[in-house]
Amino acid sequence: MAECDIFPKEEFHDRCDRLQAALAARDLDALLLTSPADVFYTTGFLTRFWESPTRPWFVVVPRRGEPVAVIPAIGRDLMARNWLSDIRTWDAPDPVDDGVSLLAATLCDLVPESGRIGLPMGPETSLRMPLADHARVAAAIGRRSFTDATDCVQRVREIKSGREIELIREICTIAGDAFDRVPGIVSAGQTQRAVFAAFQIALLEAGADWVSYVAGGAGPGGYGDVISPATDRRLGDGDILMLDTGAVRNGYFCDFDRNFAIGRPDPAIVRAHAALHAATDAALATMRPGLLARDVHRLLCDHLNDEGMTPLGGRLGHGLGTVLTEWPSLSDKDETPLRDGMVLTLEPGVEISPGRILVHEENLVLRADGPELLSPRAPAELPVIAS
Amino acid sequence: MAECDIFPKEEFHDRCDRLQAALAARDLDALLLTSPADVFYTTGFLTRFWESPTRPWFVVVPRRGEPVAVIPAIGRDLMARNWLSDIRTWDAPDPVDDGVSLLAATLCDLVPESGRIGLPMGPETSLRMPLADHARVAAAIGRRSFTDATDCVQRVREIKSGREIELIREICTIAGDAFDRVPGIVSAGQTQRAVFAAFQIALLEAGADWVSYVAGGAGPGGYGDVISPATDRRLGDGDILMLDTGAVRNGYFCDFDRNFAIGRPDPAIVRAHAALHAATDAALATMRPGLLARDVHRLLCDHLNDEGMTPLGGRLGHGLGTVLTEWPSLSDKDETPLRDGMVLTLEPGVEISPGRILVHEENLVLRADGPELLSPRAPAELPVIAS
Repeated sequence: MAECDIFPKEEFHDRCDRLQAALAARDLDALLLTSPADVFYTTGFLTRFWESPTRPWFVVVPRRGEPVAVIPAIGRDLMARNWLSDIRTWDAPDPVDDGVSLLAATLCDLVPESGRIGLPMGPETSLRMPLADHARVAAAIGRRSFTDATDCVQRVREIKSGREIELIREICTIAGDAFDRVPGIVSAGQTQRAVFAAFQIALLEAGADWVSYVAGGAGPGGYGDVISPATDRRLGDGDILMLDTGAVRNGYFCDFDRNFAIGRPDPAIVRAHAALHAATDAALATMRPGLLARDVHRLLCDHLNDEGMTPLGGRLGHGLGTVLTEWPSLSDKDETPLRDGMVLTLEPGVEISPGRILVHEENLVLRADGPELLSPRAPAELPVIAS
Repeated sequence: MAECDIFPKEEFHDRCDRLQAALAARDLDALLLTSPADVFYTTGFLTRFWESPTRPWFVVVPRRGEPVAVIPAIGRDLMARNWLSDIRTWDAPDPVDDGVSLLAATLCDLVPESGRIGLPMGPETSLRMPLADHARVAAAIGRRSFTDATDCVQRVREIKSGREIELIREICTIAGDAFDRVPGIVSAGQTQRAVFAAFQIALLEAGADWVSYVAGGAGPGGYGDVISPATDRRLGDGDILMLDTGAVRNGYFCDFDRNFAIGRPDPAIVRAHAALHAATDAALATMRPGLLARDVHRLLCDHLNDEGMTPLGGRLGHGLGTVLTEWPSLSDKDETPLRDGMVLTLEPGVEISPGRILVHEENLVLRADGPELLSPRAPAELPVIAS
């Protein structure tokens, strides 16, 4: 890709229109965005340079007109390759004034004197700028004020466009190809660290631009958690290996896992894998726009309980897009309505014995008539790697 | 590695002692930490799960006694494999109370009634929790108050231990091996995207656990910036290719780049490469504890100007460790004193023609008697890849 070729300009106009409609509905005069995902979403600015926490980056979406980028000079060229024309820069990092006065001046330009500036302050958000600088901006913009606008951003971003869905499907297909190669590249006796490296290589060879996330576990009778990095422990006969990945292409993530048995698996594992697969089938058959996130959680739990399994606590799926995990959470506490165009993961997990778990995950887009899978469906039977 | 094997427990005790001495010196009663790097530094908790922004994670370092982790239940197992014994968890994500009351209760436990809680609020920091939840915590802890503690954390973390330096040297060596392989895996006609993928594969094959950062550029007579992701543009005769990487092993980063000419390079490029190499040599010969960050910036600029070059604006190097870029900045505005044990990058760059630049980078640890290189020194002559 050339950076500007991921999306046509119309995509950004449409996003901006929808955000501005949300601002108008809430009577907000502008939106201030600081996160990598929000900046990419509104401007097309895609870079791994976010890995450096040194510099803040700002996008101001006014209630009318095009967004304005207020960014370190090092980003001007890349930002200018996309659709924005008003790009204001400063020479960052500046220990005395790191964009504070430029951002404050921009807000004063774009927002009326007693205007309200929306800022994501709620669940799943954080402010990617120094807290002290936020206070200085707030003090420098007169009677203008900041107010929470989490909902404005989330209700817009959670509905994916056709092109976004196509991009997520593309990276899901890439990860599926890499998972298909796992039985050929993994064997008993290898360290987890070697397995994780080989899997990341397979993802890159299959077409991922980069691999932002790989986690997993391996152990006899299941694994202990799903967030650990690799250890130097060697795979042994009877282990269950789980690999989970958020690989990225064109700025969009997949997020699904696969399980593999090293040698003949314990019958309890076989039953658990079948139950997770069937619970996922049940959710795929039932999910519709209008259900709440918690309804899907209940459906998965009920199905697993009916099969005599112990569902894991926490959530059993979530949103997906330009970030590894987005809202909503498929948990018993999340009342977000599911909508046509949401991309979601289904991630049911069970406890097999104390401290030993098995987790299964697929990615889908919700359509008016139900889910359409984006990840290639996991095999119903747990794949076995000869030990 | 098993996660707990990266550092002996004594390393964490030492870190904690130094942070607590900084708290005492500032008369602070505790430190609240939320960032991936600060949590890893104080607890040994290493995971790529930070890629999910859904859940906040907290560590409270009291003025006396061991740190307390206040984290989502999903992280308990991994946190418990390290040195902390007081791990308090909640079932996250919770849309109503996502750790707010547990964190507030912990702060009330550990901090006296009118106590001051340090929080990093200054340059290079951001608060990794929802802003609205921070306000709710502040309202729930009575007369206790938050105050900026950026300096406490930065003055401690910027001095690397012997083991930390060893880990950074290890990943620098791995990246050096991968860079050595570039002439064998890159050729004219390949897309940048294919080159970036091949380079990431080389890093993983050489021993990186993961590759958090690859950027670069390629073009005739230099490149446009140093933060762009790959495009589908094909390498052509006369291009200068730059690859820059932050690869990671055991949670520690390298950050250096290398330049390659595709076919015979333009004499202006050869001169610029030689000047950047010589400016780096000059800095390596001159840097000592006690100089300020800006002194090194001036030294590099003076050297480049003397050779008739046009130094780039912005900074020409920075700190390095558990994050791709740490403070200080080798810029004309940064007055941070350099100290024995700091790990730094030297990153001089020049403008060759309008919009075309060349950037050179090395990693070092500053010792009492001067710098010791951690990256294998780049060749004095620009390597040429046959076109």
